[in-house]
Formats: sequence, structure tokens, C-alpha cells
Amino acid sequence: MNTKRIVFSGSGGQGVITAAIILAEAAVIYEGLNAVQTQSYGPEARGGATKADVVISEEPIHYPKVIHPHILVCLTQKAYNNFSGIIHPGGLLLTDSHYVKQERKVDARRVELGMYRAVMDKIGKPIAFNICMLGAMTRLTGLVRAESIMEVLETKIPVDFLEINKRALEIGLQLAETHQ
Amino acid sequence: MNTKRIVFSGSGGQGVITAAIILAEAAVIYEGLNAVQTQSYGPEARGGATKADVVISEEPIHYPKVIHPHILVCLTQKAYNNFSGIIHPGGLLLTDSHYVKQERKVDARRVELGMYRAVMDKIGKPIAFNICMLGAMTRLTGLVRAESIMEVLETKIPVDFLEINKRALEIGLQLAETHQ
Repeated sequence: MNTKRIVFSGSGGQGVITAAIILAEAAVIYEGLNAVQTQSYGPEARGGATKADVVISEEPIHYPKVIHPHILVCLTQKAYNNFSGIIHPGGLLLTDSHYVKQERKVDARRVELGMYRAVMDKIGKPIAFNICMLGAMTRLTGLVRAESIMEVLETKIPVDFLEINKRALEIGLQLAETHQ
Repeated sequence: MNTKRIVFSGSGGQGVITAAIILAEAAVIYEGLNAVQTQSYGPEARGGATKADVVISEEPIHYPKVIHPHILVCLTQKAYNNFSGIIHPGGLLLTDSHYVKQERKVDARRVELGMYRAVMDKIGKPIAFNICMLGAMTRLTGLVRAESIMEVLETKIPVDFLEINKRALEIGLQLAETHQ
């Protein structure tokens, strides 16, 4: 596997940092890869915008920041407006169709999925929206196996919320399946 | 303020990543500083060891990894054995006296506090041990104000656990106070 750079972006409460940590741990603990996960907070953090970077590689990782991500996920319009321009040419740009309208031309595979809507329809509250996104991203990219994400969920998520999170992961996997 | 580099290290379940994220957000959102927070996962992550880096600065931060921390916290003996050698000369090395015996000579201000014991005595379970550590570190260093940590706790911690976390922060502040 070549080194892959991933950016998750959205607003403070959407769990993008948690999603990035879960992805990194899945890659390292269950796939035998190396990973670095970074939050860079600047002035935009004070406006509630969040951006979390993950670098995954078979090799040691010397530069942890992500400048041009191969995979970019934007979960708010503001995140899309801020970050859609940084995607690596030919990368994957995944957005949520409830929150984001993809208005720009970008040199990327553009995928809009109704992740928020599906979570609200099937779970009834948005608490595992980030995990649904991870499921969709996993299925679209094959970056790590869904089973590896599931293993991390079992070690990190309090038992009362585990079923909901597993369900959200499945919803994301299915949404991306349908899309392909 | 000069740029400060901080490393929290311990085992997987001790919440060192969460502590690092809370510190970074406190610095950025309530102190007007810049911060970068990074996890670098290598083979040691598969053995349960965790290391979380934070860089805090008034200036933009170009290099997010921490090589020689000004402040190093080790919450397990293994973390101490792995990382005590990397501390910046003259830095602060904080350990928990229940988990770590400081056996090495290091060019640093060495502080051992009974954080785990105090949390177990006063709260009865170790769930906010990481927040107690943040309280102690804050008081020892003056890096950010305790009030800024408190503000972040209020936005991030589920309401049912907020009081316990605030209590743990206070316990850490007092422990460090007594030590000084």
C-alpha cells in the first residue's frame, strides 16, 4: 500500500477527531500499518471548525501533517468551502448530502451520501454519524477492513453505545455499497 | 510565551489522548494560542502503549511532532522507561507514584504525585485520572489556566460525568499545590 493521507473536516460536535483516532488505531492495531493522527488548531477552531488528519503507511511516517489528502471528507458546508481545494488530484471527496452542496469543480472522485439522513431514519439521533461516515469511507476506499474498525469500536466505545455504533458503521457500509 | 512541547504517555485506557485534545482545545479556544495535537502510532501501539503530543505556541506551528518535550508525563512504568530519555534538558517530568518509580537520572525537574491514589480515594474509580493529571500539570506549569480546562470539560464531557471530571481536575490542582 502506498502512503495514504486522509482529512476529516466538519464542526466541533460531529466527532471527526474521534473518527480519525479510530481509523488510525484500526490501521495500526489490526492491519499492521503505521499511522499518525493530528489536529492542527488555528483561529478557525474558535469558530467551531474542526479538521483531523490521518496518515497511514507501511513505512515509518516522517511528516505527519496532511497538505493534499488522497481522501477528504467534509461534513459541513464551511468545511467544504475551506478544504475542498486542497484535495490531491484524483482523490476521493466524500460529503454528506444533508450538510453539504458540492458546488465546485475539483479534480477528484466526488461522492455525496445521505449519511446524516440515514442515521436519523434508522437510529433516530445523530450520535454515531461519525461512525457511519467511517463505514462509508471504508467501503469506498478499502483503506482498512470494516472488521478492523469494528474491533476498535469494541475497545473504545462504552458498552451502552456499542450497538448503536456498530449499527451506524453498517449503515455507512451499505450506503457506500448502494452508491457503487 | 515561547513554544511549548508536551508529551503525555501511558497505556491505552488511561485517556492520554483525550487529555492532550482537551489541553490543545483549552489553549486555542480560551487562551488565543495555536496548538497542534498528534498521535504517532508505531509497533508499540500494538502492545497498548500510547503517546500523545501537543505543541502550543503564540506563533503558527510548522513542525507538529515532539522530539524533546519541555513537559513529559508518564503514567506507566513502560512509558517512563520508553520516554524519560527524550525530555528537553531542564524540562518537567511528571509521573504518577502508583504506576511509576523514577529510577533514572534525568536533567529535569522531577515530580512524582499520587494522582491515581487520590482519585481512587476521593472519587472511588479511575475514570477521570487523566483529568486529575491535567489539573496537576496545569498547576505545576501555568501553561494554561485551570478555568480554560474547565470550559473545555463543559463542552466535551457528557453531563452525567461532568461533576466527577471537575472534581478530578480540582484534586490534581490541589495535589500540585501541596507539592510546591
